[in-house]
Amino acid sequence: MRNSKAITLEEAIHKSGLKDGMTISFHHHFRGGDKVVNMVVAKLAEMGFKNLHLAASSLSDVHAPLIEHIKAGVITKISTSGLRGELANEISHGLMEEPVVFRSHGGRGSAIASGELHIDVAFLGASSADELGNACGYSRSDNAKSICGSLGYALPDARYADHVIVITDDLVAYPNMPMSIAAADVESVVVVDSVGDSSKISAGAIRDSKNPRDILLAKQAAKVVINSGLFNDGFSIQTGTGGASLAVVKYIREEMLARGIKASFALGGITAHMVKLHEEGLIEKLIDVQSFDKVAAESIKTDPFHQEVSSVDYASGEHKGSAVHALDIVILSALEVDEDFNVNVLVGSDGIIRGAIGGHQDTAADSALSIIVCPLLRGRIPCVVPKVTTLITPGKSVDVVVTEYGIAVNPARPEVAERLSAAGLPVVDIHALSAKASSIIGTPDPLPFGKKVVGVVMNRDGSVLDKIFNI
Amino acid sequence: MRNSKAITLEEAIHKSGLKDGMTISFHHHFRGGDKVVNMVVAKLAEMGFKNLHLAASSLSDVHAPLIEHIKAGVITKISTSGLRGELANEISHGLMEEPVVFRSHGGRGSAIASGELHIDVAFLGASSADELGNACGYSRSDNAKSICGSLGYALPDARYADHVIVITDDLVAYPNMPMSIAAADVESVVVVDSVGDSSKISAGAIRDSKNPRDILLAKQAAKVVINSGLFNDGFSIQTGTGGASLAVVKYIREEMLARGIKASFALGGITAHMVKLHEEGLIEKLIDVQSFDKVAAESIKTDPFHQEVSSVDYASGEHKGSAVHALDIVILSALEVDEDFNVNVLVGSDGIIRGAIGGHQDTAADSALSIIVCPLLRGRIPCVVPKVTTLITPGKSVDVVVTEYGIAVNPARPEVAERLSAAGLPVVDIHALSAKASSIIGTPDPLPFGKKVVGVVMNRDGSVLDKIFNI
Repeated sequence: MRNSKAITLEEAIHKSGLKDGMTISFHHHFRGGDKVVNMVVAKLAEMGFKNLHLAASSLSDVHAPLIEHIKAGVITKISTSGLRGELANEISHGLMEEPVVFRSHGGRGSAIASGELHIDVAFLGASSADELGNACGYSRSDNAKSICGSLGYALPDARYADHVIVITDDLVAYPNMPMSIAAADVESVVVVDSVGDSSKISAGAIRDSKNPRDILLAKQAAKVVINSGLFNDGFSIQTGTGGASLAVVKYIREEMLARGIKASFALGGITAHMVKLHEEGLIEKLIDVQSFDKVAAESIKTDPFHQEVSSVDYASGEHKGSAVHALDIVILSALEVDEDFNVNVLVGSDGIIRGAIGGHQDTAADSALSIIVCPLLRGRIPCVVPKVTTLITPGKSVDVVVTEYGIAVNPARPEVAERLSAAGLPVVDIHALSAKASSIIGTPDPLPFGKKVVGVVMNRDGSVLDKIFNI
Repeated sequence: MRNSKAITLEEAIHKSGLKDGMTISFHHHFRGGDKVVNMVVAKLAEMGFKNLHLAASSLSDVHAPLIEHIKAGVITKISTSGLRGELANEISHGLMEEPVVFRSHGGRGSAIASGELHIDVAFLGASSADELGNACGYSRSDNAKSICGSLGYALPDARYADHVIVITDDLVAYPNMPMSIAAADVESVVVVDSVGDSSKISAGAIRDSKNPRDILLAKQAAKVVINSGLFNDGFSIQTGTGGASLAVVKYIREEMLARGIKASFALGGITAHMVKLHEEGLIEKLIDVQSFDKVAAESIKTDPFHQEVSSVDYASGEHKGSAVHALDIVILSALEVDEDFNVNVLVGSDGIIRGAIGGHQDTAADSALSIIVCPLLRGRIPCVVPKVTTLITPGKSVDVVVTEYGIAVNPARPEVAERLSAAGLPVVDIHALSAKASSIIGTPDPLPFGKKVVGVVMNRDGSVLDKIFNI
């Protein structure tokens, strides 16, 4: 067509004016199935680029090939929400000279919007795009290959990056509308064989749990929701990653039906469970920054009340209009919770990075009630501890901690503790949970951290919350 | 609700930090029915503001009260696409010290995006909004009052203004999604009795013509479309304001059915005619920067393939991804066309401003074929002239001029002239049309322009095209 922007990846990189030392960005909507980061960085390495800052919305196991590019000096700085697998392991042991900067999803959106995180060239994978660059996380063509649903984390990049390259495996006829990314924000379109493996978008931290303890925790958390005082017609809810937190929505459904209660919206990562309740009329609208499975990814294509939002519209702390400011209840997981209700979702108790901040900081801070679902122990690892290994979500944002040994309520929320006790739920002191864990496991040896800072944890307002040292 | 942004207009103005000399902006989606500009400027006058720059997407007859605010020094500068009625008359006679800056819709979008037109505070009327600021040009509530459909001209303001105030007459439950303006871009929400009169959005330049000459011209223009060489399956079309150009789509419908041809999209101001063809399956998608009537305004609410776009996504010249870059055929009106195919749509042959640039410059420049529909004479006023009173769209962008005395084709497009001649259409020389008009009317006296510049016409790339002097 006239004015087509479709060129090769190498041409698009040349056209972008990318130079050594600049910042490139990516989204992680394909999660473990992402093919864009490795493909683009391999091409940049081949083209001889050095000293690049890779600013992804998140990184996972599949990005282990970055290790070689870091060793070769192609990538010398990383900003992300999380790290997993061999890349995380190597970085935890001191692979990089410059610390990785960890931000929440809302914090990343705010940092991009404010210019604190300036993106020179964004490489944005899309499930469909036309030759002018209108792009989506789904496709209406017969050629549809890789579907990821919402492109919420890519939208700040599309809006604020100096140069935007859309990468797709399904070039469709103009106009690819409705669109997530608008052509006017796009400089080039690159067609490749595959941008991602849709079967892996629900892998890892967002699998549907069959673990009996997860189910027990989910049922207990559902009781907290139901008796929180916020379980009223028009309430709103979000569930974070982790089998137990995702499963909660299944167990509040019956009580919603029994009481004739409907939710006004569900927020965040949207799952098939949420879609089901929405289609039953139990959740009026879905506000989707990330589709957690293929059911959700297909739903956002066809349902006008399944609304895609950018990470800024989802969870920015600065703009008092992001959806978290209207959120009643969030259910989140944790690697560790401490006696001050501080939460760690990023660094394992072995000192190795193995998670992501995600929307944890954002939703805990701005929701009316934040509930952490967390076993007391994972094998021989205590999850309620005197002090978290790494501070991710400050205790002042955390209201309730649900474990299989009882439910701790932040002393700042006595009215919540009263309601849960009145409902016969086992409310216990957080110190008692910590002591119980110690009594079973003993006191672990201090971790052998070194003196090199390998990661910096940002709070969503742009301040530094904590540092991660090499192990 | 928590974090509600709903406050009074006066509180919102205080909170905005608006100061004398700053730039305020408005959209014109309610056209003759707009109530926001007069309401806000009256409040600003009452609060004692002076020396403000009013940057509207357009202004019309209904904004005559601005005359008093200009005289009082509240408004000392105006940027707009057009002016009509008593305000236009007074400005044409020298009301303002500073010339009015006229931009096309795409040019305004580009100027806002580039920062050339910096908006301090945007006052954006919305048909519905929630308390966090998610806003639309339609409403799903029973309380719906003033519907305007697309908010395309307001979207650059929402995105780029320093401070955004949404003004609505229908405060709805959160989340008001799908939304046109996202809450994260909005600082305050103001609820008023009425933002506009929906019955007047199809008034003025976009009424459905019953004038026999308009119908004749529309039928002739339809023949040009059909024989242009571009009337193939998947073609795209836009019709500008003016009875004849709007009516063309009615007359190409039968030929589309006869040939089994479908359009991939219709662009721009969307009318009930366009919606009808879309619903019949003859136009696959509607790309709507402005809903030209209530049928279109209702359609955009319910039809996912009736897509709202911002004026940047619609018609920006800089971003080679705005929809005009994919447009095949545009049919536009004119006040005057001259022997070099230059077009004037802004200043009457009496020297008084009486129109708007709209998307004229943008669509004529970027479409594959631009067709001007224009009578040779309007009463005693010639419309094909030796030289236009004011240059709005350069002749190099104009391909065909359809009059009731024949069809002139720009010599730069000989292949088009050949096709039309081959189809038996009366192709004539533009000089012959001009001479014909002169022979009927005689040569008009030169207009008694003064030496004061009352308006500056910008080209869409930000350069100055022409100046308008006082009359």
